[in-house]
Amino acid sequence: MTEPIKFYFDFSSPYGYLMSEKIDALAAQHDRKVQWRPILLGVVFQATGSAPLTLQNPAKAAYSLVDFERSARFMGVPYNPPSRFPLPTQNAARTYYWLHGQDCALARQFAHAVYRAYFVDDRDISAPETVLEIAAGLGVDRDGLEGALQSPEIKARLRNECDEALAVGVFGSPHVIVDGEPFFGADRLPQIAEWLATGGF
Amino acid sequence: MTEPIKFYFDFSSPYGYLMSEKIDALAAQHDRKVQWRPILLGVVFQATGSAPLTLQNPAKAAYSLVDFERSARFMGVPYNPPSRFPLPTQNAARTYYWLHGQDCALARQFAHAVYRAYFVDDRDISAPETVLEIAAGLGVDRDGLEGALQSPEIKARLRNECDEALAVGVFGSPHVIVDGEPFFGADRLPQIAEWLATGGF
Repeated sequence: MTEPIKFYFDFSSPYGYLMSEKIDALAAQHDRKVQWRPILLGVVFQATGSAPLTLQNPAKAAYSLVDFERSARFMGVPYNPPSRFPLPTQNAARTYYWLHGQDCALARQFAHAVYRAYFVDDRDISAPETVLEIAAGLGVDRDGLEGALQSPEIKARLRNECDEALAVGVFGSPHVIVDGEPFFGADRLPQIAEWLATGGF
Repeated sequence: MTEPIKFYFDFSSPYGYLMSEKIDALAAQHDRKVQWRPILLGVVFQATGSAPLTLQNPAKAAYSLVDFERSARFMGVPYNPPSRFPLPTQNAARTYYWLHGQDCALARQFAHAVYRAYFVDDRDISAPETVLEIAAGLGVDRDGLEGALQSPEIKARLRNECDEALAVGVFGSPHVIVDGEPFFGADRLPQIAEWLATGGF
């Protein structure tokens, strides 16, 4: 039995979104499962002394906006540039882990729905209300989730996930680990495919 | 007549080296020429407030070393991690422009030779002596080049090239521009191929 592929991402990361639309199908072709692990880039950037692409120098920021859209077209993934970017994503990430404790498949559905709400429908996924609506649309009990989002347990869970991600060398999103080998960026998908096909190259 | 593809790079950039081994053949498949433009990342990083990958946070630096080698294997390009990295490359870049003023093809041969000396043979390409030897190996008059390297004209030429690169939005290496469309990184080669094949997507 092989270990699942680890997929670390932030719900506000465009390249994380592109990866999210591809990684499961690729893994399935090689009879592999994927563990999705939302994290907070704010925490990661603070720990590593980094910053979002669009808040780096103006030339890189301008290029990033071009590259997000072009990479989405190249990968055949629907993408509309969000009007608010980046956004804090702790509500979405906490919801993910709360759902994951009950139903893995539902948590995965929720993650796709959040990413598409942000990068296709331009919704403000930082707002608790948006997250609650998205979850309710998947049949999740709204009151139960609203309470859970404030619980110390779920806050601690997300903090721990961020700490664990940092401990295994995550410095950005998406960060994929296949049998110990790290791949950073949606543009590493062809290398991940080759790695899965050959067992390493 | 279409405009040449612009290829900006630093001789100390591993991803620039990977691009240098692929871009001409790709362009030729589409009847396109490539203008090679060595620049100094030191100047670019100072102007944009950035830093080399391996001098950024430890997690990213460690990953970069893994990714340089894996990307080279993935692209089928010989690569040995240089023992000194990064290096200042003004002598190599000035030599390139001096040669380019006399013989474009020779300048291209020299650029390949410098990159391979650094990323295959682990030579110290920052040293004037190494650059002179590499050029002499291609039949270049050593004394002529030694004098030229100190000339105000060739120093000004490289400064101007760096300024022009910054003016068109270059913030790293490699940076390729196809008909006004910017592509950053050796990993954008598949997108460049698609762009050349389709005229934009």
